Amino acid sequence: MRNDGRQPNQLRPVTITTGVNKYAEGSVLIEVGETKVICTASVEDRVPPFMKGQGKGWINAEYAMLPRATHSRNIREAAKGKLTGRTMEIQRLIGRALRSVVDLQALGERTITLDCDVIQADGGTRTTSITGAFIALTIAVNKISEKVQFAKYPITDFLASVSVGVIQEKAMLDLNYEEDSKAKVDMNVVMTGNGKFVEVQGTGEDAPFSREELNQLLALGEAGIAELIGKQREILGSMAARIGG
Amino acid sequence: MRNDGRQPNQLRPVTITTGVNKYAEGSVLIEVGETKVICTASVEDRVPPFMKGQGKGWINAEYAMLPRATHSRNIREAAKGKLTGRTMEIQRLIGRALRSVVDLQALGERTITLDCDVIQADGGTRTTSITGAFIALTIAVNKISEKVQFAKYPITDFLASVSVGVIQEKAMLDLNYEEDSKAKVDMNVVMTGNGKFVEVQGTGEDAPFSREELNQLLALGEAGIAELIGKQREILGSMAARIGG
Amino acid sequence: MRNDGRQPNQLRPVTITTGVNKYAEGSVLIEVGETKVICTASVEDRVPPFMKGQGKGWINAEYAMLPRATHSRNIREAAKGKLTGRTMEIQRLIGRALRSVVDLQALGERTITLDCDVIQADGGTRTTSITGAFIALTIAVNKISEKVQFAKYPITDFLASVSVGVIQEKAMLDLNYEEDSKAKVDMNVVMTGNGKFVEVQGTGEDAPFSREELNQLLALGEAGIAELIGKQREILGSMAARIGG
Amino acid sequence: MRNDGRQPNQLRPVTITTGVNKYAEGSVLIEVGETKVICTASVEDRVPPFMKGQGKGWINAEYAMLPRATHSRNIREAAKGKLTGRTMEIQRLIGRALRSVVDLQALGERTITLDCDVIQADGGTRTTSITGAFIALTIAVNKISEKVQFAKYPITDFLASVSVGVIQEKAMLDLNYEEDSKAKVDMNVVMTGNGKFVEVQGTGEDAPFSREELNQLLALGEAGIAELIGKQREILGSMAARIGG
Amino acid sequence: MRNDGRQPNQLRPVTITTGVNKYAEGSVLIEVGETKVICTASVEDRVPPFMKGQGKGWINAEYAMLPRATHSRNIREAAKGKLTGRTMEIQRLIGRALRSVVDLQALGERTITLDCDVIQADGGTRTTSITGAFIALTIAVNKISEKVQFAKYPITDFLASVSVGVIQEKAMLDLNYEEDSKAKVDMNVVMTGNGKFVEVQGTGEDAPFSREELNQLLALGEAGIAELIGKQREILGSMAARIGG
Amino acid sequence: MRNDGRQPNQLRPVTITTGVNKYAEGSVLIEVGETKVICTASVEDRVPPFMKGQGKGWINAEYAMLPRATHSRNIREAAKGKLTGRTMEIQRLIGRALRSVVDLQALGERTITLDCDVIQADGGTRTTSITGAFIALTIAVNKISEKVQFAKYPITDFLASVSVGVIQEKAMLDLNYEEDSKAKVDMNVVMTGNGKFVEVQGTGEDAPFSREELNQLLALGEAGIAELIGKQREILGSMAARIGG
Repeated sequence: MRNDGRQPNQLRPVTITTGVNKYAEGSVLIEVGETKVICTASVEDRVPPFMKGQGKGWINAEYAMLPRATHSRNIREAAKGKLTGRTMEIQRLIGRALRSVVDLQALGERTITLDCDVIQADGGTRTTSITGAFIALTIAVNKISEKVQFAKYPITDFLASVSVGVIQEKAMLDLNYEEDSKAKVDMNVVMTGNGKFVEVQGTGEDAPFSREELNQLLALGEAGIAELIGKQREILGSMAARIGG
Repeated sequence: MRNDGRQPNQLRPVTITTGVNKYAEGSVLIEVGETKVICTASVEDRVPPFMKGQGKGWINAEYAMLPRATHSRNIREAAKGKLTGRTMEIQRLIGRALRSVVDLQALGERTITLDCDVIQADGGTRTTSITGAFIALTIAVNKISEKVQFAKYPITDFLASVSVGVIQEKAMLDLNYEEDSKAKVDMNVVMTGNGKFVEVQGTGEDAPFSREELNQLLALGEAGIAELIGKQREILGSMAARIGG
Repeated sequence: MRNDGRQPNQLRPVTITTGVNKYAEGSVLIEVGETKVICTASVEDRVPPFMKGQGKGWINAEYAMLPRATHSRNIREAAKGKLTGRTMEIQRLIGRALRSVVDLQALGERTITLDCDVIQADGGTRTTSITGAFIALTIAVNKISEKVQFAKYPITDFLASVSVGVIQEKAMLDLNYEEDSKAKVDMNVVMTGNGKFVEVQGTGEDAPFSREELNQLLALGEAGIAELIGKQREILGSMAARIGG
Repeated sequence: MRNDGRQPNQLRPVTITTGVNKYAEGSVLIEVGETKVICTASVEDRVPPFMKGQGKGWINAEYAMLPRATHSRNIREAAKGKLTGRTMEIQRLIGRALRSVVDLQALGERTITLDCDVIQADGGTRTTSITGAFIALTIAVNKISEKVQFAKYPITDFLASVSVGVIQEKAMLDLNYEEDSKAKVDMNVVMTGNGKFVEVQGTGEDAPFSREELNQLLALGEAGIAELIGKQREILGSMAARIGG
Repeated sequence: MRNDGRQPNQLRPVTITTGVNKYAEGSVLIEVGETKVICTASVEDRVPPFMKGQGKGWINAEYAMLPRATHSRNIREAAKGKLTGRTMEIQRLIGRALRSVVDLQALGERTITLDCDVIQADGGTRTTSITGAFIALTIAVNKISEKVQFAKYPITDFLASVSVGVIQEKAMLDLNYEEDSKAKVDMNVVMTGNGKFVEVQGTGEDAPFSREELNQLLALGEAGIAELIGKQREILGSMAARIGG
Repeated sequence: MRNDGRQPNQLRPVTITTGVNKYAEGSVLIEVGETKVICTASVEDRVPPFMKGQGKGWINAEYAMLPRATHSRNIREAAKGKLTGRTMEIQRLIGRALRSVVDLQALGERTITLDCDVIQADGGTRTTSITGAFIALTIAVNKISEKVQFAKYPITDFLASVSVGVIQEKAMLDLNYEEDSKAKVDMNVVMTGNGKFVEVQGTGEDAPFSREELNQLLALGEAGIAELIGKQREILGSMAARIGG
């Protein structure tokens, strides 16, 4: 039925490899189908100026694509001298989503920066970045906990994200690039381990969508995210047990 | 109950003044409570490079705030030498939303740029910009139609937007700035005249939200937008009749 | 005789509305003919780095035009990533002019930033900005004086500005845009309440001008500025009495 | 009387050396006291986009100071990534002034760029740049005329510039840096060979000035410029005869 | 003897994996010890403006490091808004080196862009980029040759690069990061398959070096590069035979 | 034999004029043939942030060309808003080279900035800059020593630089612009007074070069630099005696 033979409610194959960077406090290569993202978590013992003196930490995210991550080569943002609106929007989304499951007070005066670098893009790079960055973040927090005794564990819940969309009047889970370019509605959903929404961003640029379609998309997203969180739980092993503890 | 005495499902007073700029093809000053935005529509008989030779038009939006539109003065983006991520995100949202109700083929090789300049900000500046920009756009399209015979009228439906949020476990319509800063969930909804969604952007940075809360917010948004479209219809008078025609 | 029926020595109608911004310490909408400028004064209890530790204050000015303030739409300076030379020149002029009537020592370690945002431009935007910014500044200083007892009142004199020019061998006061584009000589004059010059900037790009023409222009400017200062005095009411006191 | 022993109406020693650059179509090293500026004129057989297709030429000017042209070293504008307002203002002034004595129609579709690079600064760098750039421009136009037969000679008059100011209630000609920093009024005057004004820019930031002071300053400027134009005439030799012809 | 147990004239282990990107015309992951670089070659059927109309092609290179490629996280150049001098220097070096073994005439009007993105850095990132980029380039040229009949094969020789340095008076091959930071002399050598030099860049910032030391370093570099070219030959298989043909 | 009649191993005429800037602590105009560079040394009693608190000094270099230093006019880097890669590469080279002969500990917490501004370019601008900057630096250090008693003299050796190249199979010393554009190999050599290498940068973009050619180039460079250091010694007079002392 779909261009890669999947069912409408089927995720692409997900592979998660941890420890892919020898310097970063946490690192993951996450592959969702042909979309590949390296997520690293870097810990610093200081916070940005606007957070100073509050005894709280900060989670920051950056996102970029290698120039040939896509079908045709893109000019580097560093060469252009500025970030595109798309990049800024995605960075803000990833950071906001991760902060929703971190108790910044419990983290203490530290900044953790999540770098999500897309090595190859085949749709869903922002949702894949969130799902992968959560793992890198958790590994980094665990690493801090080897040296520091947290009064309260700073990660309060699991977090994952997936895209959903409407293609030819049918709701679909986890769109690849070809599907994404045909979708009349495109939605990104971010949810926690206890099944609550952190972000819902639905766009009907080509055609507006009904409440009924919205409901179908959210249902697909909920199921897909539950599956992704299962994979996170598996990869994190004993680290998973401390989350929300 | 609310800090300005409104009911949870009550909009702030809305005032719309057209013709506020003597040069622009369409112009509006829209006031929603203390939030004031000047929207101008500028028509050019050419399209951006990426649209050339397709016989289609383009709708572009820009958004900015005067430096003292807010409680404390902000540094101008022109002085910083770059747009913030927030501005880019809002500009992209406004443009995308407006394009969803314009038949670019019917418009022909023209660009209409909607400038939304916030003179005073008290919450809901992006949603107010969309509601006002739709009116400026319609006036501009009407002005074009005085000289050009459109085979099909390019505006396919009404479009308006409102914010909703959860404050102390209660869903509220059209948050002002003080409410917005206390809200645990913040959502912007953009809908068409026939009651379909164009954008749904919900964020639970402080606390994730349940499906039940999402439903309440969407219901509030639907009602608020219907009311705003009523006001647009009134202001546009005879121009309203051609929409979607 | 003139394209709007005025006498050579006649100002356009001037309307000044104060209190147009609910956050700013001082605010004014000044309309000179079809030229409309919002001037806000923002007070901060600190000075820029180069003024630190001198016990003195600072007056800063910024100037911008909305993209469609003019006949055809201009690209935003924020989008270009830099200020034009014209904007910088005007900002420097406004700041310098205002500082000439402020005793920075008496003001104390405070910065007052005057933002002059042109909503609609029909000639004379820089001179109108100076005339309006002086009022916003005075209102803001008055507001400070409600909390702070100034040993000496920081505003030492009135200040206003007007343009003059030579059109078809005839000196004219307060040029509108159409006149400005036909003028062979264009001069901006800034003067104080006691009839002295703060700035005289005359340019004969199209044709150089004689000493005789210069004298006529200065005479027109002097009379026009006296009239504008009369209007400032009226609007400021009891605040006017403290100036130079 | 003055810090370098000059009379109030006395210019500093002026030295003009032509042919200081082997590539430029016109070049001059102009020294006014310790102020030293290299002016080169570069000719191109095309005009900027906004002048295309009008059959007219264009005169453009750029201005810069070497980092250690001044008492303490300045950061390069290239390192900062942008021009300061002061530089832009000066460039605009030089270009505007030169264009006032060039018949762009007679010049034909050519651009002449005048680069004024200050090697050492001791006051009056913008006025010295104008006086020197006029010579470089004339040499370059003469060079063009060796290959092209101008129907009308494009340079219509001589052009020179000088600064004047009020120091301790006394009007002075051609201020050096030390004088300039003590002056309460500072004025730059640009005039043509037939004694008309092209630019008059007077500023009383520290204290406003009277009509009487303005008159004294203009008289000093007129005499100083006449003397400078005498020196230009001498240096240009036979080229001088064609000006205004 | 060395911190990782190698002999002075011993390379680190080299692993080359081709086809790591499904979109790029040529792609390689090259690992030299812990230094890991992804090199992609992107082909476009046009040349940059300065090469137009010459019937020749162009080879361009870009270089970047992921933010956490190094011990501590670096700010992204895209976030800074400009490339560092180091990046520009390296990009210029890679491009120049590759062009030395490409017959641009034979390539025809095509641009091949080599993107070298450092995933992990442990010394020698610029030399590793050159060695890897040559392979990606060859694969891309081979891919072009599947559709286009080259009159002459555009790649004229092999090309590889290695670093050498003097540590405690001893010349060493292929420095890792720790060695590099202790080296008093640091040299990068680029050579062709026929044993000629393309680039020799030696720097003695901490201490100048003698002719004798230079000779030792060059000898080590020659041997190391011959070994690297052997590995390139192996990986390229049948493609290797066409080089220089 | 050469286009200006020189022998292959002959330098162009060298003229060095000191004291060309009245503000700088050290200044030189160096002319090598038609290449002319003004080098100024500016002393500040502080170090850049990354050097703070180490009790050491810093040497920084900047390089630029006047727009018409070359055959055709170049756009100013300040106007472009960024430095080119070439400029950055040259600045880094000059700074690195000068630091190799300065004992930063002995210099104490001071920064000396060498500005190398090319007034006219005819090949060898970077090597000429190094040779001239060394003299300006020495004069500035001497000036410091008039006020400060150095425990150890901070300049440890002489330093000069020259270019060499292969033209039509023949190694040549000190290429002028025309020669440089025909050279198949281009090398810049920086050496100290005791005959050691500080930088060797050889590039064979048009054709790779053999070990034999490299040796010939180095020999020519050594002799040329010895001659340049002879001239430095002469100009510096008694200051020369303290170097390395």
